[in-house]
Amino acid sequence: MHATEGSLLERRLILLTGAAGRIGSAFRQAHGARYLFRLADLKTDGLDDTPGDGHEVIRLDVADAAACAEACVGIDTVVHLAADPSPEAEWEGSLLANNIRGVVNVFRAASEAGCRRVVFASSVHAVGGLQDEAPIPDNAAPRPTNLYGASKAFGEAVAATYAAQGLSGIAIRIGAYDAPWFREQGDAVAAMAYVSPRDLNDLLVRCIETEDIPYAVVAGISDNARKRFTLEHTRGLLGYAPRDDGFAVLGLDP
Amino acid sequence: MHATEGSLLERRLILLTGAAGRIGSAFRQAHGARYLFRLADLKTDGLDDTPGDGHEVIRLDVADAAACAEACVGIDTVVHLAADPSPEAEWEGSLLANNIRGVVNVFRAASEAGCRRVVFASSVHAVGGLQDEAPIPDNAAPRPTNLYGASKAFGEAVAATYAAQGLSGIAIRIGAYDAPWFREQGDAVAAMAYVSPRDLNDLLVRCIETEDIPYAVVAGISDNARKRFTLEHTRGLLGYAPRDDGFAVLGLDP
Repeated sequence: MHATEGSLLERRLILLTGAAGRIGSAFRQAHGARYLFRLADLKTDGLDDTPGDGHEVIRLDVADAAACAEACVGIDTVVHLAADPSPEAEWEGSLLANNIRGVVNVFRAASEAGCRRVVFASSVHAVGGLQDEAPIPDNAAPRPTNLYGASKAFGEAVAATYAAQGLSGIAIRIGAYDAPWFREQGDAVAAMAYVSPRDLNDLLVRCIETEDIPYAVVAGISDNARKRFTLEHTRGLLGYAPRDDGFAVLGLDP
Repeated sequence: MHATEGSLLERRLILLTGAAGRIGSAFRQAHGARYLFRLADLKTDGLDDTPGDGHEVIRLDVADAAACAEACVGIDTVVHLAADPSPEAEWEGSLLANNIRGVVNVFRAASEAGCRRVVFASSVHAVGGLQDEAPIPDNAAPRPTNLYGASKAFGEAVAATYAAQGLSGIAIRIGAYDAPWFREQGDAVAAMAYVSPRDLNDLLVRCIETEDIPYAVVAGISDNARKRFTLEHTRGLLGYAPRDDGFAVLGLDP
């Protein structure tokens, strides 16, 4: 057995929403032996390729409160990635259902099912309006410039709401996740917010496993030569030690 | 003519949503000569008693985006008070329509109509989860304990979003507004967040008239002997000088 693979009973049961997306796919590919996943997405194609045995695959629309309630039964930690990920997303057409109602449905369901924790994919867009010459505190007050960012700030507030009722909640302000666009069009501003798949995977594990955190907002970026966030709070709380650098990835002089 | 009364052309045109509520009624009664109001609420009974000439009365459901667009035409400043004001409000039944969709509809309509500013009634509940032994910064990062407070934190984020597009936005975290319940059941915790009608009326005038504020979150409490907020930021930005004290109102020893 691989060093990180436990028996079915020893592995934490994780509900991974948005499991078919880029971040969700990288995470389940990396940690299918470490966790027992309930893999949830609107489209479930390809979820069967997750390494490790015992995973479940379910179709889940997070705008459906009853489906969220069912999906949370028996779960230890929800990793809630499902959302419209576009900063240009339409409000009535998408954000309202997928990001606003979705995040309330998921936290409420997790709370009512007695889950231990929700790890919520917030975004650097929650603070997109803060000046970007110097690194900002990881958990600075929100200052979005678009309704996508406002929807992520709302998710952070929903995490606080359910934390007050005993459900541990950690929001990660995820930066510019490695992607073809980043390598083709990334500039110094993007490099400051870069996060590599292996650094974000490591951060997600720490967010799942670190005990005694009722509520936190942390920053999900790599060890970029110049940084969008200071990372002080995130390192101190979780022992996060990122290894990659967006400026090196792009071959840019910091 | 009264010193504060200008001609119709000199008076700012203010859209007051929630004009029939307690805060809206105290404000229009106090400043019907200073401003030219478009008075808007779900029920318009009693709005005709506003002092001063030239006011308009309209029925407005802020969940109706087209109605909000119409209500903002020609307006200088929107004072957006309309919302479900209950910390126990239902999510699907009320907050989603009145507080979430409502606040986006109003800011978007104000932005598209070219209004100068929106003054938004946020709440002390946006930060209800922060410890209350010592005063907290007026604009501390949100930490609600209920979905009502989360809806107000969202409104603050929406204000930031439209500020990035050039619409000035000021959110007031309104405390415990003077009311029979306060005088009957108020305790030291309520006294720390107390705000009198005359102090809040004065703060609203300052939020409407102070120039050159792209975006701000300020605190709406009186000069309580012990305070929920420091008031430093609010005093510095707006020259706010509250006169009342919740401990004196209740006859409590601070």
